[in-house]
Amino acid sequence: MRVINFNPGPAGLPLPALERARDELLDFEHSGMSVMEHSHRGREYEAVHNEAIALLTELLGIPTSHQVLFLTGGASQQFAQVPMNFLTPGTSADYLMTGVWSEKAFEEAKYYGTPRVAVTTVQPDKHYTRVPHQDELRLDAKAAYVHMTSNNTIYGTQWHTFPDVGAVPLVVDMSSDFLWRKQDVGGIALLYAGAQKNLGPSGVTVVVAARDFIARGRKDIPKVFRYGIHAENNSLYNTPPTLAIYLVRNVLAWMKSVGGLAQIEAWNRQKAALLYGALDQHAGFYRAPVERASRSVMNVVFHLPTEALDAAFVAEARTQGMVGLKGHRTSGGIRVSTYNAVTVENVQALTSFMEHFVKTHG
Amino acid sequence: MRVINFNPGPAGLPLPALERARDELLDFEHSGMSVMEHSHRGREYEAVHNEAIALLTELLGIPTSHQVLFLTGGASQQFAQVPMNFLTPGTSADYLMTGVWSEKAFEEAKYYGTPRVAVTTVQPDKHYTRVPHQDELRLDAKAAYVHMTSNNTIYGTQWHTFPDVGAVPLVVDMSSDFLWRKQDVGGIALLYAGAQKNLGPSGVTVVVAARDFIARGRKDIPKVFRYGIHAENNSLYNTPPTLAIYLVRNVLAWMKSVGGLAQIEAWNRQKAALLYGALDQHAGFYRAPVERASRSVMNVVFHLPTEALDAAFVAEARTQGMVGLKGHRTSGGIRVSTYNAVTVENVQALTSFMEHFVKTHG
Repeated sequence: MRVINFNPGPAGLPLPALERARDELLDFEHSGMSVMEHSHRGREYEAVHNEAIALLTELLGIPTSHQVLFLTGGASQQFAQVPMNFLTPGTSADYLMTGVWSEKAFEEAKYYGTPRVAVTTVQPDKHYTRVPHQDELRLDAKAAYVHMTSNNTIYGTQWHTFPDVGAVPLVVDMSSDFLWRKQDVGGIALLYAGAQKNLGPSGVTVVVAARDFIARGRKDIPKVFRYGIHAENNSLYNTPPTLAIYLVRNVLAWMKSVGGLAQIEAWNRQKAALLYGALDQHAGFYRAPVERASRSVMNVVFHLPTEALDAAFVAEARTQGMVGLKGHRTSGGIRVSTYNAVTVENVQALTSFMEHFVKTHG
Repeated sequence: MRVINFNPGPAGLPLPALERARDELLDFEHSGMSVMEHSHRGREYEAVHNEAIALLTELLGIPTSHQVLFLTGGASQQFAQVPMNFLTPGTSADYLMTGVWSEKAFEEAKYYGTPRVAVTTVQPDKHYTRVPHQDELRLDAKAAYVHMTSNNTIYGTQWHTFPDVGAVPLVVDMSSDFLWRKQDVGGIALLYAGAQKNLGPSGVTVVVAARDFIARGRKDIPKVFRYGIHAENNSLYNTPPTLAIYLVRNVLAWMKSVGGLAQIEAWNRQKAALLYGALDQHAGFYRAPVERASRSVMNVVFHLPTEALDAAFVAEARTQGMVGLKGHRTSGGIRVSTYNAVTVENVQALTSFMEHFVKTHG
């Protein structure tokens, strides 16, 4: 029996994508071996690799100015790889600070150049409850790039409109909301996302970057860290994580089969409306700390009146087959992550439970 | 129907490890979700992670002076990560050149220090047919480390005895022969291996390193590249490739179940004896270019009298259900990779076919 999985990542994956993997795990397309036993240079795997790129390009409408890469190391490695490629000692980049992950990205950039904080919404208690407004940004027109985190899993905040950064290249860590909707990426110089939210298992990182931005990357760094080398080799410079990319292909094929990102977005907006609706209706019981305009569609964060009630909520939900609801250890409370594999029905089950819980414990 | 898979990597994996993955792919240990949908911070995944480390430690007899890490990026990333951690501008490391992979490792080290070629067995035609003898090494006692490649997949050469490098830390790229036998790793400062040969799918890199060597790593590099950070966090500094590590766990559990590395080594020696025996018996037809003492137990390389016969051999073997036999594109000929999932019976089928082929085409 499958549970209802509200994990923040690695997150639940769509059942059809997993079933497809299970059914052919020992014998991929009648080749007599698993997809993970195929050579990454063979036509069977290369077809999967290229189909994953083609599906992503189609679903997101990625323009020909941009290229899709499959790398490894997660967002954490990108925190270092971006400045390694685009900063030199003495040059700067602007960082928009909206949470712990922005902070980590900022720290790693210090080893390669001089990152600047162009804005922060940190509070005295070190938490964040909103993303900045355009007029708060103090941008440097000479920055090598502007770095931002599009969604902040821990705090449940999200940029619903991306900032105007002028002519400076925009670099976006989309790890925690990539593919929640169709989104124009033509104006983004480079985006990166660990797969383990909407896209697949952990172990593969998707990068979508402008070809002309990639071309400006430093050439005096190891080949394996140059975006340009991976771009020239279609992400086959070295052995890619073939099984993880195969699973990403399965998830993307599922997204297409259900109607693409327009349908995915509609579901995500329905799920968020259900959850925030329940919170607002019982605002005296459920406290949602995030500023309304910054509320995340992917991670809905709230607190019950006491920590004991937070714990009771998580425990009772578990008896109803709903897991992954405990808030991040630094924030406490409840976090409902509604990545793409979570259905509207799953969320309805949770909001019914929330109604019931407020009646019995409110 | 599963084929007989002689792929050089990603290589075939033991069927029981794959069947176990298939059987619980949708519902891991009755948790209601796939292992890849579990949080890397949850007790279910952490048990798998720690079991993989414990099994590897037990199978190889890793001493407490050493620690096991699970990283990503394959050997190619280690080519850069090792010098990033252990070289500074002006310091040198000694490289033992035995093939293309040693050459690539050497090139990446140039971005961090001054690597030296302490020996090379390259021939005028740029190929390699042997590993060096101890008395050929020109070692620098002040080197930060000595780097070597224990097995050379492309050329089919292997170090059967590791060189004496004195007090200088030994770093070994074991990507293509890790776990072919029980091996004392206490004298190795750091070894690394992409999983995709004897260990699991591509997408995870195993590092086994001396704790005191790790501690000497540079602190002025990004956190994500420091071995020390991953060691302190038991390879959970950031989200690890959980599915790949789970599969490594399955493969290690299989190794233990069949009798551990003593049994694995016995099978590997039998397989190599069968193949080299067939080559030597028909030395007029099958040409094995590798010097006898350097012959690899993992990759058996040979040529037929003509390229047309090489191609016919590969094509006819395929009709018998044997795949993955084509030599590397830079060397041509035939390459039989006999990683741990290849059985003695599989190799007997191939040597029977070789006998037949020499009779019909010799």
